[in-house]
Amino acid sequence: MSPDEAAVAVSEQRDAGASMTSPGAGMTADIGEQPEVYAHLAHTQSNAIAAVAERIARRRPRYVLYAARGTSDHAALYAAYLTEIRLGIPAGLASPSTVTVFGSRPDLADCMVVGVSQSGGSPDIAAVLKSAAESGAVTVAVTNNPESALAAQAHHHIDICAGHERAVAATKTYTAELLALFMLIEGIRTGNGKLAEPETTALASLPELARTVLDDDTVVEVARRYRFADRMVTTGRGYAYPTARETALKLMETSYLPALAFSGADLLHGPLAMTDPAVPVLAVVGDGPGGAAMGDVVGRLEEQRADVVVLGPRNVGGASLHIPAPAVDERIAPMVDILPLQRLALSVAVSRGENPDAPRGLRKVTETL
Amino acid sequence: MSPDEAAVAVSEQRDAGASMTSPGAGMTADIGEQPEVYAHLAHTQSNAIAAVAERIARRRPRYVLYAARGTSDHAALYAAYLTEIRLGIPAGLASPSTVTVFGSRPDLADCMVVGVSQSGGSPDIAAVLKSAAESGAVTVAVTNNPESALAAQAHHHIDICAGHERAVAATKTYTAELLALFMLIEGIRTGNGKLAEPETTALASLPELARTVLDDDTVVEVARRYRFADRMVTTGRGYAYPTARETALKLMETSYLPALAFSGADLLHGPLAMTDPAVPVLAVVGDGPGGAAMGDVVGRLEEQRADVVVLGPRNVGGASLHIPAPAVDERIAPMVDILPLQRLALSVAVSRGENPDAPRGLRKVTETL
Repeated sequence: MSPDEAAVAVSEQRDAGASMTSPGAGMTADIGEQPEVYAHLAHTQSNAIAAVAERIARRRPRYVLYAARGTSDHAALYAAYLTEIRLGIPAGLASPSTVTVFGSRPDLADCMVVGVSQSGGSPDIAAVLKSAAESGAVTVAVTNNPESALAAQAHHHIDICAGHERAVAATKTYTAELLALFMLIEGIRTGNGKLAEPETTALASLPELARTVLDDDTVVEVARRYRFADRMVTTGRGYAYPTARETALKLMETSYLPALAFSGADLLHGPLAMTDPAVPVLAVVGDGPGGAAMGDVVGRLEEQRADVVVLGPRNVGGASLHIPAPAVDERIAPMVDILPLQRLALSVAVSRGENPDAPRGLRKVTETL
Repeated sequence: MSPDEAAVAVSEQRDAGASMTSPGAGMTADIGEQPEVYAHLAHTQSNAIAAVAERIARRRPRYVLYAARGTSDHAALYAAYLTEIRLGIPAGLASPSTVTVFGSRPDLADCMVVGVSQSGGSPDIAAVLKSAAESGAVTVAVTNNPESALAAQAHHHIDICAGHERAVAATKTYTAELLALFMLIEGIRTGNGKLAEPETTALASLPELARTVLDDDTVVEVARRYRFADRMVTTGRGYAYPTARETALKLMETSYLPALAFSGADLLHGPLAMTDPAVPVLAVVGDGPGGAAMGDVVGRLEEQRADVVVLGPRNVGGASLHIPAPAVDERIAPMVDILPLQRLALSVAVSRGENPDAPRGLRKVTETL
């Protein structure tokens, strides 16, 4: 396609139902369904995902590339960490514009290229997968729509089975993408596509963990505190960094709160300077190596007199508030920790008189080239 | 190293001279030297870089991984675009924590791994290169310090020869990294390490282009306009996206202005919702495919009634202000477009009574693990 055609088209599809109910009703329902989405996905798709994982494992990809936008890009980032740490295979996030705008055709033989998109309708992700398949890659689409163009086009499709998402801001499709990608990568790791014992056990307890976390209302108090915040910083390291990124995006989409997400290390390389008592910081500090590496980041934030709220199993240093989260394996934590943070974005938005089900300027399916 | 040791140490090295002069004097001098840095680097390092490029070209890497933090990470992002578009080799940005915090040892045989760091002193970048070399990769360090640990450790070192940088906020080391990486990648493209005719011609005119752009004071007017801004959005696509990212970081480091950078496409996947007349947007719209793809992004921003300032050869749509930049190849534009934007950050900082030479909470060398 020509550069002049490289425009941005937006579908007119909207959720006709959202405006008929109270603001945030759709997002509230979507968030509340996540324990059931986990149980349903693990129950119904285990065999299908294992079959894909086994075929990928047999091809032994040398490199994995993820292509995604928005919320799905954060699921892809999580998967990139899993791929490098658990499979020992280098993984990267695609810049679709190299293909769609600049006409690049990288040689991707021996690669696996994974497109992640709840709608399966973004033309740039489809273009990356098409180009990848032409250059020899094996392609996988992870979507919530088996009828989508992306699903039809990829060598393999993984259905995240999250059901209809009511709000424009993605919640249950994000967490279902995380779980589907976890099952795929851990299935590749064993070689036969099936999960090993520890992963099977972890997934069995995931729905109940999710329910417990959603029942805790600490986050409502935190949301009150942010009623008049005009900016925000979120941070985490390793597997928790996608959680920080996704929290920032939810706050921007629903509360129109400019929120900056940084890996704990990147925060110290410059952005630390702008943290002061007027900028609330939300730090995700889990139970494992990533969380341990956040200790000194929180210390440096306190030297700046930043207002730090910690989400995790333990409070850290002198944080103003603590949002409790269970002490679980850091690979599982992203599927649990994001739940109260979705509620945080929802609460801040509603308290400001906004309707997170239909944010200004956004549509459910964003088609970019 | 253990998770508990994965702390963040910060050297006490500071520029003792900066505080003795007027606020911003160091950054002003650094910015003004960039035309000479370009001329000097191209003149003195062409042969050395060509020698590295030729040896890399002979190895025909299958995949290129860049490891960097902060400002250098934006130079690495630029190089990743160049690598994919000009070499047709997939390229990615490393998440050092997978190696330093989670102990991952990805198989990087057939890969080139490039560490970019002005100081050459960040332990996490050194750890990524060490691990990469052990797993079969060819490693390259791009630094401003041939005596650094990173330079000593890599198979190849490229000296960016930018001289002593006075301010904590990096300016001339950033643009020198861009030029060194351009010379490396375009040298790999020809196969013999030397630049082809169009690239040689482009580089010959770069110092004069840089001088012309630095002589234009439009940006001072724009800086006045942002005196009381409390947040900002920057955006660009393709090669211009690193410029948007680096501008945001400079504003955060020097003016303590929370600035959010998005690729034009990612902006439409959510963050668009928070743009309104109170959030100034700076859009980098170049002369080529990336710039053309920004047209509709600016249109969507105007629908949101955002205050848009366009930097580029032409004004676009109904932008409030236009910062002129020369119409040059989009691969060259990042080395030119950032210059007025560095001046913008400097001017905003000084007008707010801050000293960009020594931002609060930051040191010149940031050591993260």
